[in-house]
Amino acid sequence: MTFAMGPNNYGKSGIRLVRVGRESARHELRDLTVHTALSGDLDATHYTGDNTGVLPTDSQKNTVYAFARGGIGAIEAFAERLARHFVDATPSITTARVRIEEHGWTRIGDHSFTRGEGGELRTTEALYDGETVRIRSGVRDLLLLNTTDSEFNGFLADEYTTLPETDDRILATAVTATWDYQAEDPDDAFYDHAFTKARGALLTAFADTYSLSLQQTLHAVGERILKAIPEVAEVRLSLPNRHHYLFDLGRFGLDNPGVVFQAGDLPYGLIEGTVRRETA
Amino acid sequence: MTFAMGPNNYGKSGIRLVRVGRESARHELRDLTVHTALSGDLDATHYTGDNTGVLPTDSQKNTVYAFARGGIGAIEAFAERLARHFVDATPSITTARVRIEEHGWTRIGDHSFTRGEGGELRTTEALYDGETVRIRSGVRDLLLLNTTDSEFNGFLADEYTTLPETDDRILATAVTATWDYQAEDPDDAFYDHAFTKARGALLTAFADTYSLSLQQTLHAVGERILKAIPEVAEVRLSLPNRHHYLFDLGRFGLDNPGVVFQAGDLPYGLIEGTVRRETA
Amino acid sequence: MTFAMGPNNYGKSGIRLVRVGRESARHELRDLTVHTALSGDLDATHYTGDNTGVLPTDSQKNTVYAFARGGIGAIEAFAERLARHFVDATPSITTARVRIEEHGWTRIGDHSFTRGEGGELRTTEALYDGETVRIRSGVRDLLLLNTTDSEFNGFLADEYTTLPETDDRILATAVTATWDYQAEDPDDAFYDHAFTKARGALLTAFADTYSLSLQQTLHAVGERILKAIPEVAEVRLSLPNRHHYLFDLGRFGLDNPGVVFQAGDLPYGLIEGTVRRETA
Amino acid sequence: MTFAMGPNNYGKSGIRLVRVGRESARHELRDLTVHTALSGDLDATHYTGDNTGVLPTDSQKNTVYAFARGGIGAIEAFAERLARHFVDATPSITTARVRIEEHGWTRIGDHSFTRGEGGELRTTEALYDGETVRIRSGVRDLLLLNTTDSEFNGFLADEYTTLPETDDRILATAVTATWDYQAEDPDDAFYDHAFTKARGALLTAFADTYSLSLQQTLHAVGERILKAIPEVAEVRLSLPNRHHYLFDLGRFGLDNPGVVFQAGDLPYGLIEGTVRRETA
Repeated sequence: MTFAMGPNNYGKSGIRLVRVGRESARHELRDLTVHTALSGDLDATHYTGDNTGVLPTDSQKNTVYAFARGGIGAIEAFAERLARHFVDATPSITTARVRIEEHGWTRIGDHSFTRGEGGELRTTEALYDGETVRIRSGVRDLLLLNTTDSEFNGFLADEYTTLPETDDRILATAVTATWDYQAEDPDDAFYDHAFTKARGALLTAFADTYSLSLQQTLHAVGERILKAIPEVAEVRLSLPNRHHYLFDLGRFGLDNPGVVFQAGDLPYGLIEGTVRRETA
Repeated sequence: MTFAMGPNNYGKSGIRLVRVGRESARHELRDLTVHTALSGDLDATHYTGDNTGVLPTDSQKNTVYAFARGGIGAIEAFAERLARHFVDATPSITTARVRIEEHGWTRIGDHSFTRGEGGELRTTEALYDGETVRIRSGVRDLLLLNTTDSEFNGFLADEYTTLPETDDRILATAVTATWDYQAEDPDDAFYDHAFTKARGALLTAFADTYSLSLQQTLHAVGERILKAIPEVAEVRLSLPNRHHYLFDLGRFGLDNPGVVFQAGDLPYGLIEGTVRRETA
Repeated sequence: MTFAMGPNNYGKSGIRLVRVGRESARHELRDLTVHTALSGDLDATHYTGDNTGVLPTDSQKNTVYAFARGGIGAIEAFAERLARHFVDATPSITTARVRIEEHGWTRIGDHSFTRGEGGELRTTEALYDGETVRIRSGVRDLLLLNTTDSEFNGFLADEYTTLPETDDRILATAVTATWDYQAEDPDDAFYDHAFTKARGALLTAFADTYSLSLQQTLHAVGERILKAIPEVAEVRLSLPNRHHYLFDLGRFGLDNPGVVFQAGDLPYGLIEGTVRRETA
Repeated sequence: MTFAMGPNNYGKSGIRLVRVGRESARHELRDLTVHTALSGDLDATHYTGDNTGVLPTDSQKNTVYAFARGGIGAIEAFAERLARHFVDATPSITTARVRIEEHGWTRIGDHSFTRGEGGELRTTEALYDGETVRIRSGVRDLLLLNTTDSEFNGFLADEYTTLPETDDRILATAVTATWDYQAEDPDDAFYDHAFTKARGALLTAFADTYSLSLQQTLHAVGERILKAIPEVAEVRLSLPNRHHYLFDLGRFGLDNPGVVFQAGDLPYGLIEGTVRRETA
């Protein structure tokens, strides 16, 4: 074989799972999107099309729905059960990664729910290699906006710098954050509680921080999550800077003391970073 | 002129306006997208490129930001002020249509707000022809889901019909609704109150209706909005039927008594209709 | 009944149909998205949930796939066959509207094809009321850009006007156009030939017109289509003005004689109009 | 500092750059989206909001437009020039990653161009750490479809497997591929020529391969690109399996010998892998 396979995986993406809990007249609703990715001894199918070791992605999809019959619990635990199954029950598979996004719904009746299109996502990823499982949790598309208490000053100016300094701007972002748990025997309650704490820490840190840069806010958010959850060693944050431009109303004889803004679209800033608990 | 202009209009779309109310330390946040469309005596620009009567779409954009300086109030009233201005202040313009979508934010601090990406929109459209103004209000992307109390039976079956009848299904939709007000001197409070009542009626009607068809639900929703707001004569509803397919778990030795569903994407049903107050 | 139904319709949207013609080893590929909308005597389902007259949207979907078995031909003719069937074969249905979008693919082998994601769409809509059929054709998402030969001058300036006049700008748009045919016994060849001519006229008119306003270009495009196809009486055009802003390089000691532009996103201009053949 | 920064970067995303080459009456058009990401000694801004070392993302955007004034050439070379500049000219910055996507336009006149919305993207990423530069090239959203010569048989069947074997299916994918160049003094002509060869190899391999699995196709595509370009050591491919389901027409008394398909949306398979030149 002159041209060899390097790292590879395969699975089913975008498995849309809705589960209704009917234990009481007050139904429970869960709304997940699941993605599976398996790897292992898959050389044969790549080199010759011998599919002996290939569990179809359709079977992976079926497995997700079948496992949901018995209940989901925290998405972290559900992802782990699936990841363990794919490796433990499939001889050719040595590693499984199962990612899940959960859409929250607001109850408006015993069996009725509402939400807006889109919305914020709770996310997880379980990675299992036959020995250990790594659980990653997070949020995506969580929009946050401060109308004040944000400056951007004293930055490096090169020959292409024209941005004026500002001591009062809107700071807006759409948070993607992930963190891993190092917990002994975590259960559904642990995961749900930890997520609630992390999300609360994130919101509070954003609201409370007087920001001199979005980087400073990023660090403050990461720090607050780490303080809230001892089982987390580091937090990865991706914070687009959704620019809001003060609209020049002086041309029309009007002042604009931080009141009227044009929300920008493209381009946007993007600040990414990891905040770590010092173990020294 | 052998090839004449028929109906035409022009304007600026996607004007992204954010306004911060700083009257107190507890800031107010408004987040709108505005679209303008003007028509009038515009033959010259179409036939010869003579732009004497063309108010640039850039000026229309500037006007939206300038008008926001003094406050927005209900989006209906803001749209009307803009529409009246474009017609009354521009000799060549005889009709103006101003559409607005508003994104709601949830307060998490005196100057801090959050929402998920996307979300439900409150909408309006003001149409002014120099004499009368028509105000249309509505919602878009409001997702609703009932986990039970929905059947679909007794339908017409032709040679291409294979759908099984069901006496218990998930009913899910993403509501777009609009209605016009016939009110004397409506003010901001009227519009905000009417919208709150309409949205509430919509949710309650959806949750309370035992549905034999999405059409029946559509009528029930329209009726409930009309009952809630005397100033509305008809409600237009567009209800996609977001299918949820009961997943066949019998193949795996599992029952599935309305618990595990595959949320469908394409295709989807689409039910559209107008419900009217009978005036006879 | 105190709250009566006004206009209403229902159907299936987003039916994704791919057809492979295997008459020879050189396969033919067709890729359509079909939307159906039926109306008629549907009061019962709205008022009481009596579905006796409701042909399920699932059956409508099945019909689309079944009709595709015998061949598609021009999408206009396929849409008409479907629309006629829904009305003629369903007692409760009096009007059917069938819309189709077609994605073109480029052949790269006897049974191999390629295209980019998205792309330009050929569209149609057949409307049948049991007596007459109206066939509408068009294009969507056809991007056009001129790097020069576009001015915008001499426009109306009000107190909110700050736009500078320009005698050389980029003119870019994404064309949506529709037109109806009044033809006797049109067949597949007629529709395909007419579409090819219309699209060609559209491109040529855009490229050839020295534009003093996008409105002038709109009229020129409509006129050219009307001249190319005698069976068309009017053309409806929707032309977003995709602004390209000359980037200010003077701040960096560089000139910028129409070379470097920032492509804008939101907001955008929107010019809509109908061009008609004068019959006087 | 109890909570330390780990890996981090910041930059401007979605810089929309259009360049018109006016050297002759036959204008040249380039349409790029550029993303910058810088990292280096940025602890101060994260810990205290001291922005002394922070070159604003706005300045990065300005730089992109300013550099475009002198010409772009191959996107790989343009990305490299930018990446080198950000590191070499900014004391606090040690690493720069510049990503570019290019939209192709089709000429329809000396200064007129067309394309469909979306389309296939040519991509690159230049990574520079002050010493060496790594150039990565690729494509995104390149759709490929074979109407036959694709089987999927002999796969592993577990208790959740219900997929029937097939010896003739549609195989459709949307290719994302990337590869790195190890070339001495590559110039614009090298990059453009290599990209053309890679894209051609990709299309030919897809069309020519009789596929027993999408994995086998992935390997064939990677192998063909490696054979075509000696300067490439490995190819990374991400191939969604866009399922096309043979529609069951037997219920309507019709056969369906591989003619009528329902194009699926969610879920989809996802096959990812790296193909490497063996150096042993």
